[in-house]
Amino acid sequence: MIMVKTVIVGYGNIGKAVYDALSAAPDMSVAGVVLRDREKAREKGVPEGVPVFEDVSEPGTADVAILCVPSRSVPNEAVKYLAKGIHTVDSYDLHGEAMLILYNTLDTIGKKHNSVAVIGMGLDPGVDTLIRGIFETAAPKGISYTNFGPGMSMGHTTVVKSIEGVKNGLSVTLPLGAGLHRRMVYVEIMDGYDFDTISDTIKKDPYFVKDETHVIQTNDVSALQDVGHGMNIERKGVSGKTDNQLFNFDMRVNNPAVTAQIMVAAARAAMRQKPGCHTPLDIPVADMLYGGRDDLIRRLV
Amino acid sequence: MIMVKTVIVGYGNIGKAVYDALSAAPDMSVAGVVLRDREKAREKGVPEGVPVFEDVSEPGTADVAILCVPSRSVPNEAVKYLAKGIHTVDSYDLHGEAMLILYNTLDTIGKKHNSVAVIGMGLDPGVDTLIRGIFETAAPKGISYTNFGPGMSMGHTTVVKSIEGVKNGLSVTLPLGAGLHRRMVYVEIMDGYDFDTISDTIKKDPYFVKDETHVIQTNDVSALQDVGHGMNIERKGVSGKTDNQLFNFDMRVNNPAVTAQIMVAAARAAMRQKPGCHTPLDIPVADMLYGGRDDLIRRLV
Repeated sequence: MIMVKTVIVGYGNIGKAVYDALSAAPDMSVAGVVLRDREKAREKGVPEGVPVFEDVSEPGTADVAILCVPSRSVPNEAVKYLAKGIHTVDSYDLHGEAMLILYNTLDTIGKKHNSVAVIGMGLDPGVDTLIRGIFETAAPKGISYTNFGPGMSMGHTTVVKSIEGVKNGLSVTLPLGAGLHRRMVYVEIMDGYDFDTISDTIKKDPYFVKDETHVIQTNDVSALQDVGHGMNIERKGVSGKTDNQLFNFDMRVNNPAVTAQIMVAAARAAMRQKPGCHTPLDIPVADMLYGGRDDLIRRLV
Repeated sequence: MIMVKTVIVGYGNIGKAVYDALSAAPDMSVAGVVLRDREKAREKGVPEGVPVFEDVSEPGTADVAILCVPSRSVPNEAVKYLAKGIHTVDSYDLHGEAMLILYNTLDTIGKKHNSVAVIGMGLDPGVDTLIRGIFETAAPKGISYTNFGPGMSMGHTTVVKSIEGVKNGLSVTLPLGAGLHRRMVYVEIMDGYDFDTISDTIKKDPYFVKDETHVIQTNDVSALQDVGHGMNIERKGVSGKTDNQLFNFDMRVNNPAVTAQIMVAAARAAMRQKPGCHTPLDIPVADMLYGGRDDLIRRLV
């Protein structure tokens, strides 16, 4: 069996969960963890015996870099690896025009350096993208609603934590139906910072500006944390000339665990794609699965 | 825009629904319908103005033949078209070893004649295959259950109707949970045939032999017919080292309409695949969708 050699870039919630998912996969190996500050490796929980690199030039023989960094760092990190001929996987979660810009940027670089970028591979985008695509395949006319929560949004929480003066933060998403959401943001604030200013910064951030957002000050964010998340996608649409075709998808999951698992599946798939950039919609499901073709046909088709 | 030229092979429930789905698709055209008995075209409901061919040699310029014939006729029909360089799409619904045999047969012929076969494209296999694959991607360890119904099974109904002495038949599937099913078969019998013999033949057929099957004689099967169908797939599994990851998919649909819609999407995808055979797991979702890449990324990723 060919083993896929990976490096994990960043070692927060997702990086740790990626390590677990890689350990559980028979065909994947961990060549190392990339951390800006190598000294912090053990403190961050990198297991003993796993090599830690400080720089992109060190991985050397890795096939795929799994980028477990905040979305906003993804474009720069991805470019560095792709330019060295190392494939990348990310769970970049800015939708719409931002995703298209990332796609075009990484597609050009990947094609130039014979490397593969798989972008937007997590819960949403990722699993949800595939579900939305399949629902639209089955009923091309109609409306799909993606309803998040109740649960912690990792992307939004990262944004909150990155704001100056925020000691710790948590963004919880509540579904209001029809794809509308309320965001409950809990923040612990550093001494000398003003709550109202921080609240305002959060509400004006592109991640929050479109939704009803409430910011609440608290003394202990960690007491509120639970990484379980819910997700629902519903579509009522038309197949051919037949209306009222109903589709529903529900997921209740540990968010970092499933995000990491999808990223590891995407790392496997990266080995099987042409150079350039690929979204979840461009990857055959078989390429993400472990197992021989005959076995997959017998079990899943 | 490049139009995909299709022929519809067979014009029963699925053939008719495929015509509807093709008519609704901006990028697909109907080059004709293939019927063994051309005289029956209008009686079967082929619309005026649609060319009717009796033989595989006639379609000529079609890109894709959409095979709306019983599963058991699929292998022979597919081979005929593929050997002429015409792509094929089917909703072959025998799982396991039979699917693998079809895959290998059509893969060889497609590669030899530079044509593409897309197999198993309907509800199950088809939509369900993709969902099962995605669920396993997100949680590689665990158990998935596919629960059908309540509703009419088209594949099973076709098998019932094909049995000698059966005037009309209907096979309804009821879910018993955990992927187990009860099959209620309603039959109208021709004069001079024995009900018990027919009931026995049905129960011993590979389509029925594994399930609890009840065969009921009735005077008017048509009064019972409703092509609505239900489908549920559930998985509880493990992502990385995290248990209790829950996934659920539900669909309540007009069965021929959605089957046909998926087949039309597969015909579109056939134009974008390499020669050989492809299952639902081998087709990127984007290839099944109408619309430009940029639009798909903006809307669905």
